[in-house]
Amino acid sequence: MSSNEMRQFVLAEIPQGKLTNSNFKLETAPIPTPGDGEILVKTRYISLDAANRAWMQGATYRDAIEGGQVMAGGILGEVLESNDPNFQAGDLISADGGWREYAALPGSVCQKQPHIEPKTHLLSIYGVTGLTAYFGFLEICQPKAGETVLVSAAAGAVGTIVGQIAKIKGCRVVGTAGSDEKCDWLVNELGFDAAVNYRNGSVFKDLKEACPNGIDCYFDNTGGEILEAALFQMNIYGRISCCGAVSSYDGAPPQAGPRGVPGLLVVKRLTMRGFIVSDFFAGSSVGTRTDAINQLKEWVDAGKIHVLEDIVDGFENVPDALIGLLAGENRGKRIVRVND
Amino acid sequence: MSSNEMRQFVLAEIPQGKLTNSNFKLETAPIPTPGDGEILVKTRYISLDAANRAWMQGATYRDAIEGGQVMAGGILGEVLESNDPNFQAGDLISADGGWREYAALPGSVCQKQPHIEPKTHLLSIYGVTGLTAYFGFLEICQPKAGETVLVSAAAGAVGTIVGQIAKIKGCRVVGTAGSDEKCDWLVNELGFDAAVNYRNGSVFKDLKEACPNGIDCYFDNTGGEILEAALFQMNIYGRISCCGAVSSYDGAPPQAGPRGVPGLLVVKRLTMRGFIVSDFFAGSSVGTRTDAINQLKEWVDAGKIHVLEDIVDGFENVPDALIGLLAGENRGKRIVRVND
Repeated sequence: MSSNEMRQFVLAEIPQGKLTNSNFKLETAPIPTPGDGEILVKTRYISLDAANRAWMQGATYRDAIEGGQVMAGGILGEVLESNDPNFQAGDLISADGGWREYAALPGSVCQKQPHIEPKTHLLSIYGVTGLTAYFGFLEICQPKAGETVLVSAAAGAVGTIVGQIAKIKGCRVVGTAGSDEKCDWLVNELGFDAAVNYRNGSVFKDLKEACPNGIDCYFDNTGGEILEAALFQMNIYGRISCCGAVSSYDGAPPQAGPRGVPGLLVVKRLTMRGFIVSDFFAGSSVGTRTDAINQLKEWVDAGKIHVLEDIVDGFENVPDALIGLLAGENRGKRIVRVND
Repeated sequence: MSSNEMRQFVLAEIPQGKLTNSNFKLETAPIPTPGDGEILVKTRYISLDAANRAWMQGATYRDAIEGGQVMAGGILGEVLESNDPNFQAGDLISADGGWREYAALPGSVCQKQPHIEPKTHLLSIYGVTGLTAYFGFLEICQPKAGETVLVSAAAGAVGTIVGQIAKIKGCRVVGTAGSDEKCDWLVNELGFDAAVNYRNGSVFKDLKEACPNGIDCYFDNTGGEILEAALFQMNIYGRISCCGAVSSYDGAPPQAGPRGVPGLLVVKRLTMRGFIVSDFFAGSSVGTRTDAINQLKEWVDAGKIHVLEDIVDGFENVPDALIGLLAGENRGKRIVRVND
């Protein structure tokens, strides 16, 4: 590789079942030259998200990723050259820069970021992950002190933050995760009141024990069996925040939805609502994007939120990092350090 | 039957499958004597509602009806004697009086009604039916002019009103019903823009044709296949008002829910919300119960809402009237005239 070349991962083909390494192809390409209104960005960190896998299934809130394209993904990068008056060399930006070491991006799709340390917090607590937890939980669930809050994929990037915000709000917090070790960690290290290993084969009964007063708020990262069990245990006027459906991303599409829809929604007067975090950036009953970041920062600085990050080193490891995330091997926010 | 006796229907046993006449037993009983705080009511009209069947399946927003009890149901009655200072002989009341010719009821569970003609309007447009349409559609769907509104069980009591309110609000209105005759009637008599016979075996395709711009609001009376088809055709930020699940009331409980929950809720940012009409009586973004009745009356008086009633004569016909309603034989609000 010459000095004007870089590495990038192309999605060689759309996976039919579980995502594997062979779905990606590592390529060498010329470092791009930014055009009018574009900036040249050097990738520092790449954010790994379950949504990366969902994007391969078809159009969502963004176009589907197609085979042969550079794999999409959130990055934190440093501006090297700028043809956009809003940016200059040395700025930090976040964007959907894709899995490559350098990118030429229109300035209009990049968000300038402050210089803070650790920089990774810009992709975790102060990035889409933290904001998703903040708005998706506070705005949609509207939790009240004393209520029971269930969070699925609780040991993941968003789940760890939702659980801690729920504790700050005075709720009883129960999480689900995929191993006994993770469950112990949620309770002993993160302050969850209880945790349920959904792989034990008794989700319904275990949730019943963990939520003796029923469930008032459910922050759903998974869909599937946990959602169905939760629906049957929701209290009247319960709120379900639909953040993701990771149980169905990495495999065949689900053949059926949860029983109890819509019957239980009617008799228990439940609300289920899906969202995309950017819907709330301009304003919500819990503030704007700036308000959210300020509040999260206050909680972090006061030691009320522990920021859990799972950093993987080396650009070449991005595909494995995503495959492992989909298998549930991370705790907290998984990020690949490319160059910092 | 002596002059101090009356007829009543007892739910002999909880139906295991479809409701039949043999689930009910016609009995003779003494006309009751009202106790302290009670009023003696003579039943004028009995309201038939799909919810009557749901009550047999288990506890909902009310206790389950059990075998051996007088069948529950909404009535319009005249007060004959009163031991409650809030009521006097000659007053009209509505209540869950049950399927009997007379009832002694606590005054506290009865709602005084004005003397209007036809009295049946107190059970249809100005009763739970009209209020369910008003609040369940306007408050939960928040329709805007130009949006596409889908209503299932559109030829039923609530559906006929929702569809007409949606037209008043300037929406494109599409209904589903169980026969071509009903569909023609919805379009030609009630002003729906299109109607789909869900028994034609091509619900998804037929809805696609009827809703070329997708669906913004779905008022769901049925659940099941129509809900699933609607979910896949909802536009982003769509709202689904979950009013009932009549597709699953009269038979075995459903083995699965609609595909697309929660995945489509996330990617399309949909809201699904169940409700019980009385939740809104004290206030909502579209007013109180009194505001709702005043607005409905204005629309009825202006000829903008046609009140569709399907009156069956004779107390002895109440079970058949309900069985027929569950089979979809009514158009508009089904009511049994007991004595008027």
